[in-house]
Amino acid sequence: MGMHAMKRRQFLRRAGIAAAAVPLAAPALAQGRLEWKMVTSWPKNAPGVGINAQRLADRITALSEGRLTVRLFAAGELVPPFGGFDAVTSGAAELCHATPYYWAGKAKALHYFTGVPFGLTAPEMMGWIYFGGAQALWDEVYAPFGVKGFYVGSSGVQSGGWFRSEIKSAADLKGLKFRIAGLGGEVMKKLGVIVTLTPPGEIFAAMQSGAVDAAEWVGPWNDLAFGLHRIAKFYYQPGFFEPGPALELLVDKKKFDALPPVLQKVIEQASLATAAETLADFTRHNIEALEPLVREHGVQLRLWPADVVKAAGKAWKEVQAEVAAGDALTGKVDASFKTYLAKARRWARWSDYAVLRAREDGLA
Amino acid sequence: MGMHAMKRRQFLRRAGIAAAAVPLAAPALAQGRLEWKMVTSWPKNAPGVGINAQRLADRITALSEGRLTVRLFAAGELVPPFGGFDAVTSGAAELCHATPYYWAGKAKALHYFTGVPFGLTAPEMMGWIYFGGAQALWDEVYAPFGVKGFYVGSSGVQSGGWFRSEIKSAADLKGLKFRIAGLGGEVMKKLGVIVTLTPPGEIFAAMQSGAVDAAEWVGPWNDLAFGLHRIAKFYYQPGFFEPGPALELLVDKKKFDALPPVLQKVIEQASLATAAETLADFTRHNIEALEPLVREHGVQLRLWPADVVKAAGKAWKEVQAEVAAGDALTGKVDASFKTYLAKARRWARWSDYAVLRAREDGLA
Repeated sequence: MGMHAMKRRQFLRRAGIAAAAVPLAAPALAQGRLEWKMVTSWPKNAPGVGINAQRLADRITALSEGRLTVRLFAAGELVPPFGGFDAVTSGAAELCHATPYYWAGKAKALHYFTGVPFGLTAPEMMGWIYFGGAQALWDEVYAPFGVKGFYVGSSGVQSGGWFRSEIKSAADLKGLKFRIAGLGGEVMKKLGVIVTLTPPGEIFAAMQSGAVDAAEWVGPWNDLAFGLHRIAKFYYQPGFFEPGPALELLVDKKKFDALPPVLQKVIEQASLATAAETLADFTRHNIEALEPLVREHGVQLRLWPADVVKAAGKAWKEVQAEVAAGDALTGKVDASFKTYLAKARRWARWSDYAVLRAREDGLA
Repeated sequence: MGMHAMKRRQFLRRAGIAAAAVPLAAPALAQGRLEWKMVTSWPKNAPGVGINAQRLADRITALSEGRLTVRLFAAGELVPPFGGFDAVTSGAAELCHATPYYWAGKAKALHYFTGVPFGLTAPEMMGWIYFGGAQALWDEVYAPFGVKGFYVGSSGVQSGGWFRSEIKSAADLKGLKFRIAGLGGEVMKKLGVIVTLTPPGEIFAAMQSGAVDAAEWVGPWNDLAFGLHRIAKFYYQPGFFEPGPALELLVDKKKFDALPPVLQKVIEQASLATAAETLADFTRHNIEALEPLVREHGVQLRLWPADVVKAAGKAWKEVQAEVAAGDALTGKVDASFKTYLAKARRWARWSDYAVLRAREDGLA
C-alpha cells in the first residue's frame, strides 16, 4: 500500500467509513473486499454436509482476512436443493457446496467425480483427484459450463439404506420404491426397484408418507439426525453404491480466474483443508452414532444378502458400459477410473482390507 | 504499520537488510515478516514425507503471503534425523515435520498420537484427533515441553516389512535383527526379535551391510524409492503395527502463541490441507508402486502367517498394559484411545471392511 492510499484509509477509518467499501483505483479487486454467495443442497446445519459447508465458507473468509467473505445459503434459501448448478452458471451465486452427480443430467461423466457403485474409497478418490489425473478430467467436463469443481471431502463409506422389512434375497427388492441417488439408482432399477431421488430435506417426509418404501441417505450420523430409524428398522450395510462419495465446491470459473492469485490459493487450500476435516467429522460421528442407533432405537443392522451384491455387481457392469459409451469424454473418464480402480483394488487387498482383518484377528 | 516503521523498513530494504531480523517496537511481530525454520526427520525430497513437508512449508509461506516464510531443512542439514524435538524445544528451529513417536522417550503417551499396533486407520485417527478429544490430550502431553503438535496426514496402511527369507511362522522371527519403529518394535521384542530403530536415511545401508536382517519403512512407494527390494524379496503385508500412522507438525508453542491470529490460522489450516494432500499422495503412489515392485523387481508379496498376527496381538495387549500403567497421563490417553477404537472397530466391520469385501464380491 502506498503512502497516499494509507493516509486515505486512515482518514476513512477516522471518519467511520469502511475503507473497503469505497471503490479504489485499479487493481481495485486486489485491494477491495468481495462478498460471494455459497448455495448448498443441504438443509441448514445438517450434520456433516451443512456444517462442513459452513466451515468451508468461514475458512475462506478467515484465510482471506475478509477480502473474500462467503455467505452460506441452505437448500431453499436462495435456490431449490438441486438448483445449485444453475445458480452458479447463471451468476446467481458464485459458489455451491454439493456433490457432482446431482448435475449428472448436464454431463454423465460427473457421476465419476462423486463416485460410482463398487468404486473408490475416500482416500483412493482423493488420490485419483489430486494425483491421478482426475482433476484435469473433471475440469474438462466442467469447462463448457464455465465452472470448476474442488474436492471438499467425503462421508466415507455410506450405508446401504433403511428398509421397513428384511431383504432376504434380491427377489425382495422387486417393486420396492427406494430413494437412492446416483448410479446406484440405475443399478437398482435393473434389480426391479422403483427409484426416486428425493431431495435430502424431504427424505423423512417421503418415508413417513409412504411415498417411498425405503431410503438411503448417508450413514449412522446423518441418518440418525434425519430420524429415519423412527420409520424403518432394518439398516442395510454397506453402501456399496457409494464407498467414498465426494463432496464438491463448485465455483464460477470466470470469477475464480479473475481473483487475485492469493484468493485463488485461499479457495484451493480451504477446499483441501475441508477435505480432511469433513472426512474426519463423518468418520468420528458415524463411529459414535452406530451404538445409540442399535441400543436405544432398536435398529437391526444387516449385511446385504450375497445374491444382492452379486446381482448389483453384474447390473453395475452393464450400467457402467452404457454410461461410458454415452459420449467420448465420459468414455475417457471411465477409462482413467477403471485403470486406477483395478490398481487400487489390488493395493487395498494387501493394505486396508488386510489390516482391518488383522486388527480383528489380533485383538480377538 | 505506522509511517515511521514503514520508512524505516524501506530504508532497511534498500540497504539490503532483512527487516524481520531487526527488532522493532511492539507489536512488531504482528506487522513484521518472519522467517521460520522447519527441520524434518526425512532425507531431502524423500517421497511422501520429505515432499509433503516441503509442500507444508510452501503452503504456510503462500497463505501468509510471505509474512511467515518457512525454510525447510532435511534430516542432517541443521540437526540429526531424530534431533527435531530438541531443535524446537531449544529454539534452534520453530517447526519440525516428523512423527510423535520419535519423541516417545520424552513422554510415552506420544506413541498414541502417531498410532499404535492394531490401532486406528488414517480416517479414524483424523476423527479421533479433530473431533474425538485427542487434540486436547496431545496438547496436555506436550504442554510441559512448550510445544504443540498438529496432525499433518498419514501414509495410510503401512507395509509389514522386507525379509530376506520367508517367515512361515512366528518361530522364524526369533533372533532376527529387524529395523522397526514405534511400539511395533516392543511387540516384536516379545516375539524374540532383535529390534533397532535405524534413522530413515540409513535403512538401505543397514540392510545392505547386514546390520539388520529385515526392515520396515513405509509402503510400496517409499520402499521402492529406498531400494529395499534390491536386498530383500519377501514383502510382508499388512503393517498391522501401523494401520494409519500420523505425521506431525511440531511447533514452538510460545512463538506460535505470539503470532498474530491470522498466522496461527494459516498454520492450522495449512496443516489440515496437508493432512488431505499427504494421505492422497501416499494412497495414489502406493497404488501405482505395487505393480512395478512385483512385475519388474520380482518382489514376493506375503500375508503374515496367522500365528504371527495372533502372537503379535497377544504381545501388544501386554505392551499396551505396560505403557498405559507408566504414568497417569499416558493412562488417560490410553483410555480415550481404547474407548474410541472399540467403537471404530464396530463401525469398520459394517463400513470399510464390508465395502472392500462387497467390492471384490460385486466385481468378481
